[in-house]
Amino acid sequence: MTNTPVCVVGLGLIGGSLMRAAAAAGREVFGYNRSVDAVREARFDGFDASENLDATLQRATESNALVVLAVPMPALPIMLAHVRDSAPNCPLTDVISVKGAVLQQVQKFGLLDRFVGGHPMAGTAHSGWAAGNPALFVGAPWVVSVDSHVDAEVWAQVTRLALDCRAVVVPACSEEHDAAAAAISHLPHLFAEALALNAGEVPLAFALAAGSFRDGTRVAATAPDLVRAMCEANAGQLLPALEHGIKLLTQARDSLAATGSLADLVESGHAARMRYDSFSRPEIVTTVVGAENWRDELAAAGRAGGVIRSALPVLGSR
Amino acid sequence: MTNTPVCVVGLGLIGGSLMRAAAAAGREVFGYNRSVDAVREARFDGFDASENLDATLQRATESNALVVLAVPMPALPIMLAHVRDSAPNCPLTDVISVKGAVLQQVQKFGLLDRFVGGHPMAGTAHSGWAAGNPALFVGAPWVVSVDSHVDAEVWAQVTRLALDCRAVVVPACSEEHDAAAAAISHLPHLFAEALALNAGEVPLAFALAAGSFRDGTRVAATAPDLVRAMCEANAGQLLPALEHGIKLLTQARDSLAATGSLADLVESGHAARMRYDSFSRPEIVTTVVGAENWRDELAAAGRAGGVIRSALPVLGSR
Repeated sequence: MTNTPVCVVGLGLIGGSLMRAAAAAGREVFGYNRSVDAVREARFDGFDASENLDATLQRATESNALVVLAVPMPALPIMLAHVRDSAPNCPLTDVISVKGAVLQQVQKFGLLDRFVGGHPMAGTAHSGWAAGNPALFVGAPWVVSVDSHVDAEVWAQVTRLALDCRAVVVPACSEEHDAAAAAISHLPHLFAEALALNAGEVPLAFALAAGSFRDGTRVAATAPDLVRAMCEANAGQLLPALEHGIKLLTQARDSLAATGSLADLVESGHAARMRYDSFSRPEIVTTVVGAENWRDELAAAGRAGGVIRSALPVLGSR
Repeated sequence: MTNTPVCVVGLGLIGGSLMRAAAAAGREVFGYNRSVDAVREARFDGFDASENLDATLQRATESNALVVLAVPMPALPIMLAHVRDSAPNCPLTDVISVKGAVLQQVQKFGLLDRFVGGHPMAGTAHSGWAAGNPALFVGAPWVVSVDSHVDAEVWAQVTRLALDCRAVVVPACSEEHDAAAAAISHLPHLFAEALALNAGEVPLAFALAAGSFRDGTRVAATAPDLVRAMCEANAGQLLPALEHGIKLLTQARDSLAATGSLADLVESGHAARMRYDSFSRPEIVTTVVGAENWRDELAAAGRAGGVIRSALPVLGSR
């Protein structure tokens, strides 16, 4: 199983980093990218890349490769149509930042049986093959879905790929992932955009901006299309998070106006951040993948902060 | 003038860093701190520190030192009472993050004539003498007030201290400083608190949190008392900024709910952040401090992004 080839569809920041990381771990890896320029760059860097999608997926079928969908959300349906036609029996995963919307599409194309969703929680404000980095995933949480449909063997393959990329695996259900992603990624993006936009309208603001502004707006430098794609695809979870964020700020505004105090927001925000800083990450070691209730057991362990740092045993595997 | 001694009142992160930076620049510097422990630490590190405020201010009077108020806003009135009693004729500045509220207090204690407000835009999430760092101000914008009352000689002394600490000086009026600080520091603090608090209530959020959450909530790790002190003291400017931030987020929420699109916020936020990244900092070199309209001229130059990197000529000085 360790030697399953990896077929990466989309060689941008994430897909390109994954290709490099998998190769560095000794995996056979090949991939597709739409842009001829990126393919040329990847080849120049010594990687096995092609701009022919169907030929790439055909090769995945022949070698029973693990197919990794690493395209932006809007390109997903077209890619899934090709996978259905050229590689319907390959184990399939993705590295897209929303899981519920991906699951819906995968189901629509009849590919659910061999699919296990994934999401490495890593990125930079840059994009494209050239921005890739084999160390991008080192120590990062990489969600591998434990939704009720997932197959134990495919799950183990996806987990092994994440571990080969030196991530730590967090097992989670798609819906819980999306609610968490709204809180820790999509809402921070919108807050960053609002901070940048507000400051841009104040004379002297950019002249004085220092660390708290730079950090608070760093992700506003991300390409707008990518931000929109991930936030809009997660609207179902992002809307209540945004609603709650607005409510917290409105309560603080009302308190500041009425009493001059920001105690509630500042003290509870600080306490939450302190809890995050001391959040522990126990290793998940006891679950046997494929055993009774294994998905629920892993989902509960992930929710409690558990991470997988080395491959778990798989029921019936030698 | 270069050799004016510096008297630092308050040896926390900012005051302690200032003491180290001034000493590194060859300035004679001594200081006061309320806590005996911090005084002992500073002395252990080779600095001239005392826990006797009146003796320290007496010494400032004798050497005509530049007195730097580096205490949190709530402690300011008590310090000003001592300055009025023991060092009323010393040139006086401060490094507190709000300028309008400080100005009011200074006026109340009758110390306006010799006062020029200041604010180095630098900090970390840590506090106290031990957190200090002589390089804290290197390259940071340091606002020096050009309000209509400021004296040219004192202004030149405060500017020289900031330059000795290797900051770049941004001349600005107190009110404009406070509006800018609300946009680039105080609002980012409140947004960070709200992001941390919101995520703390979502299962799995801390387990998945990565760069965008860490950066977006970094300043929520700052001691709540310090955050409250600076935000609450700037309520007059922070309230409209908070109002505007809430409005931008509410518009995004409405747009996402109605049309599924976040285009307006994401595209304009990104454009603002790009403008910040390419914001230029022309050097201010032509103004003669003390010449006609020098304060207005510097305020306009600061507003346009101008910074002072080496001492400007002072009218009538040799």
